[in-house]
Amino acid sequence: MMRKDRLLLVVTLTTIFSADIYFILLPKLRNMMGQTSRHSCSCNGSDLALPRQGGLATPRLFNWTSPPFLDGMTPESMDGGSKLERLFAHPLYNIQTPVLMPEERLLEAEQLIKYYKKKVSRWERHMKTYSKALNWSNVTVAAHEVTYDPDASWVKFYLGINRYALYSREDPTILQLLKDLQSMTVVNADYTQDEKALKGACDCSQVVKPSGHHLKLALKMRNLAKVMYKPMRQQRDDETPEDVFYFVDFQRHNAEIASFHLDRILDFRRVPPVAGRQLNITGEVLHVTHNEDLRSVFFTSPANNTCFFAKCLYMCKTEYAVCGSPNHLEGSMSAYLPSLSMAPRVSIPNPWTRSYTFTGRQEWEDNPFYCDTVKQQPPYNSGNRLLNIIDMSIFDFLTGNMDRHHYEIFSNFGDEGFLLHLDNARGFGKHSHDEMSILAPLTQCCIIKRSTLLRLQLLAQSAFSLSDVMRESLQSDPLHPILTEPHISALDRRLHKVLSAVQQCVRRLGEDEVITNDFIKPTVNPTVTTEMELLR
Amino acid sequence: MMRKDRLLLVVTLTTIFSADIYFILLPKLRNMMGQTSRHSCSCNGSDLALPRQGGLATPRLFNWTSPPFLDGMTPESMDGGSKLERLFAHPLYNIQTPVLMPEERLLEAEQLIKYYKKKVSRWERHMKTYSKALNWSNVTVAAHEVTYDPDASWVKFYLGINRYALYSREDPTILQLLKDLQSMTVVNADYTQDEKALKGACDCSQVVKPSGHHLKLALKMRNLAKVMYKPMRQQRDDETPEDVFYFVDFQRHNAEIASFHLDRILDFRRVPPVAGRQLNITGEVLHVTHNEDLRSVFFTSPANNTCFFAKCLYMCKTEYAVCGSPNHLEGSMSAYLPSLSMAPRVSIPNPWTRSYTFTGRQEWEDNPFYCDTVKQQPPYNSGNRLLNIIDMSIFDFLTGNMDRHHYEIFSNFGDEGFLLHLDNARGFGKHSHDEMSILAPLTQCCIIKRSTLLRLQLLAQSAFSLSDVMRESLQSDPLHPILTEPHISALDRRLHKVLSAVQQCVRRLGEDEVITNDFIKPTVNPTVTTEMELLR
Repeated sequence: MMRKDRLLLVVTLTTIFSADIYFILLPKLRNMMGQTSRHSCSCNGSDLALPRQGGLATPRLFNWTSPPFLDGMTPESMDGGSKLERLFAHPLYNIQTPVLMPEERLLEAEQLIKYYKKKVSRWERHMKTYSKALNWSNVTVAAHEVTYDPDASWVKFYLGINRYALYSREDPTILQLLKDLQSMTVVNADYTQDEKALKGACDCSQVVKPSGHHLKLALKMRNLAKVMYKPMRQQRDDETPEDVFYFVDFQRHNAEIASFHLDRILDFRRVPPVAGRQLNITGEVLHVTHNEDLRSVFFTSPANNTCFFAKCLYMCKTEYAVCGSPNHLEGSMSAYLPSLSMAPRVSIPNPWTRSYTFTGRQEWEDNPFYCDTVKQQPPYNSGNRLLNIIDMSIFDFLTGNMDRHHYEIFSNFGDEGFLLHLDNARGFGKHSHDEMSILAPLTQCCIIKRSTLLRLQLLAQSAFSLSDVMRESLQSDPLHPILTEPHISALDRRLHKVLSAVQQCVRRLGEDEVITNDFIKPTVNPTVTTEMELLR
Repeated sequence: MMRKDRLLLVVTLTTIFSADIYFILLPKLRNMMGQTSRHSCSCNGSDLALPRQGGLATPRLFNWTSPPFLDGMTPESMDGGSKLERLFAHPLYNIQTPVLMPEERLLEAEQLIKYYKKKVSRWERHMKTYSKALNWSNVTVAAHEVTYDPDASWVKFYLGINRYALYSREDPTILQLLKDLQSMTVVNADYTQDEKALKGACDCSQVVKPSGHHLKLALKMRNLAKVMYKPMRQQRDDETPEDVFYFVDFQRHNAEIASFHLDRILDFRRVPPVAGRQLNITGEVLHVTHNEDLRSVFFTSPANNTCFFAKCLYMCKTEYAVCGSPNHLEGSMSAYLPSLSMAPRVSIPNPWTRSYTFTGRQEWEDNPFYCDTVKQQPPYNSGNRLLNIIDMSIFDFLTGNMDRHHYEIFSNFGDEGFLLHLDNARGFGKHSHDEMSILAPLTQCCIIKRSTLLRLQLLAQSAFSLSDVMRESLQSDPLHPILTEPHISALDRRLHKVLSAVQQCVRRLGEDEVITNDFIKPTVNPTVTTEMELLR
């Protein structure tokens, strides 16, 4: 277990060293070679002043919101071309993960292939009996062949999941998986397990429990990839009304898509791949489902469009339905994670959860020292868990998602595993509002991973500009534009606010207390949980 | 009983005679006196050509959609001033109802005053015990004094209801009642009986039963007038989405208000008075209700506005709530009709009801001879009932209200009683669409009251112009503008379509078959029901 820590130490030091060369030494060399006389370009889309400052490893703190990364970068290196490519080519995005030990991968290939084969033969058996049963009924169901493809993108995606992230940066699998999500034949559609668990009856005894607006479906693709489809509920320029509580807000398919791109740009890689798709809800849902209940919620609207509504009891009203035009309906297609039987996950209450009631308040909302309590409790008293929570709060603050009551981790990776950023559909509801309370974990604990901070600073520069790289990244989705311009530019404003929050912490506590060399420096109180012991 | 018919005959003949003088003789006199040389004014707001045609009693039919009423009207009589006043001054709007027999009034003064006194003393007793009970609890409830006022506008309104209409044209009571609805102190608020009947549980077994969006309250005013408050659910320029079924459409407070004005302009006077009001939902609902359930659905929104939601089980989600700003919320204030104990009403299925399911169709939608069946069944086989249904269908077609599954009549007036035009909140949903199927009673039965037709023709003239008089009438409401311009101008277009429909019937069947001299000519098959016999 010690070997891993040593590896991580080496990796981190190498990164810092590379960044030093890139930002400190190279600029100085360029300066010496007299290249600074060229015109300075006026970088579009940035409202940040960019004074040239000190180095990466020990950034000077007098103006944190104007990060030091441009120091020495020549205008031509920022001008034209793909900012996104430049971002992903940056040393900070090219830190090599150490060679993975078998126990650091989520799944074994053999296990997955066996699972896959079993699924295929089970499907084929099911189709035989189902086809026979269908002969006796009036229902026509399109019977698509399924294929067994051990090189399927979803198989490769599953095999790539490791203790650091859901996928690696350079993995071409993800691109292929996104393409498959966008175009592969759908062979089956059903309710998700969540909706099945409701069994048609919602518990309305709790007045304000999270809403039943989650009209989502589980789709099976031709190669048996499993996908969650969330249909479009609102137009791109619809804003969440100010009186709507976060926990009853619509789920937005475009927020799911945008969150995947943002998570990748932040280099977290904790959101499973999501692509947009115009689904034919008649041909690709109604005609392929074997679920009688699901079939029964389909209807034709007065405007002759195909519509369906959710199963839940209080959702049995057509005003909550979604409709195609006449059959086609936009939606987000999210790759499922491996089944819980193969890769169990635990769902853990977010210490900064909100009160899901009208009036209730949580301790963190009133107690400025709340983090001190959290810090003393396992698993937050050691390792990266608290830093991961802070990463997540930054991610959620950027999207404006207030609905993070739980988070999930893979059981296999123990307490040091990364936090999954699942279910991001309630982000991007209001572009003009920055909900500062989402940042409470950061502002109250005043710690942040150095790696995260460095990337945020990079993205605050006009040479990379979070809004520009997001805009570019989202253009690859077939449903683009995914976000309206006000939502995209809000990202820059919010990023600025995150950096200001860090700056304030540093002013108050000093850099050493605030900026944590992740993978190396443990947080206070080195008590570790059993799982932590196992991993060390 | 015969005396009444004779009176009616006299009234109608007098009307026709007056109109003849007004439209035929006077113009001829004016022509003779050489007054026709003046400039013709270009009347604003009208898209109808207005050829000068023959007399009123026997209109010539070659161009029905361009009615004959302007014949001989001088330009100056149409120019400037209040079109609404001119309309109400028109002979057609000044037909005197015969002196009412006691049995032709809905209520006796004595009975109503006794009821009122009982209500006042019951309220005072209740307040005593309630105030004591309140002392033991934390709840503060504003205790307003009630007044006993035998001259209260609502008392006069109730006493004015007769077998011809809810109120008479010249009655100043209605103006006073509207003012009281707009400003009188609210002393109590509660759920309506409808909502209480739900007892917190909605029957969702019927997938498409009429929606529970009816967030309405029963308010008590200082003088114990009872008022139904329907809060604003959507902005004036929100249109009903094309995929929404009529039976799940929002209820619109402005449609309630506009329908009252339209009904008055059409001279039906079958809609109880409705006024708009900015209600303080904290001070005038939350703080005056004695209903614990109602208090419990109030909450403060994230934007610090006071909100409340409906009681029904599947409505227990805040996304269906309405919110004040921060306390003030627009709504329609409809005067209640006298209680059912005093003036029982019967609710009768509309023969042209729609199928309240996704796919079901009613017979009238497929059978062009459906009216022949209806005409043979009591109470539609005699008297005015079928003609009243057709009046109602014209009214509903003009507002675009498809949700008329039942209609109500006062039991006291028997089968000859007028139809109440209650619950008009689903009108004015789409200004750009004219739902022709609402006119089915007219187009399938091809009959219409002469009095209704004459008024419709009058309103199609630019001198009166339905849109202009509606605009003018709606300006008297404190919440004006009540309708957007597209909704107002849609009225002219729809009126034109009603007149075209009549024209087609006349072409096919001849004027005598189509245009019925109401109060005089009975419809086919003189079989009468018991109640009809009583009234004759």
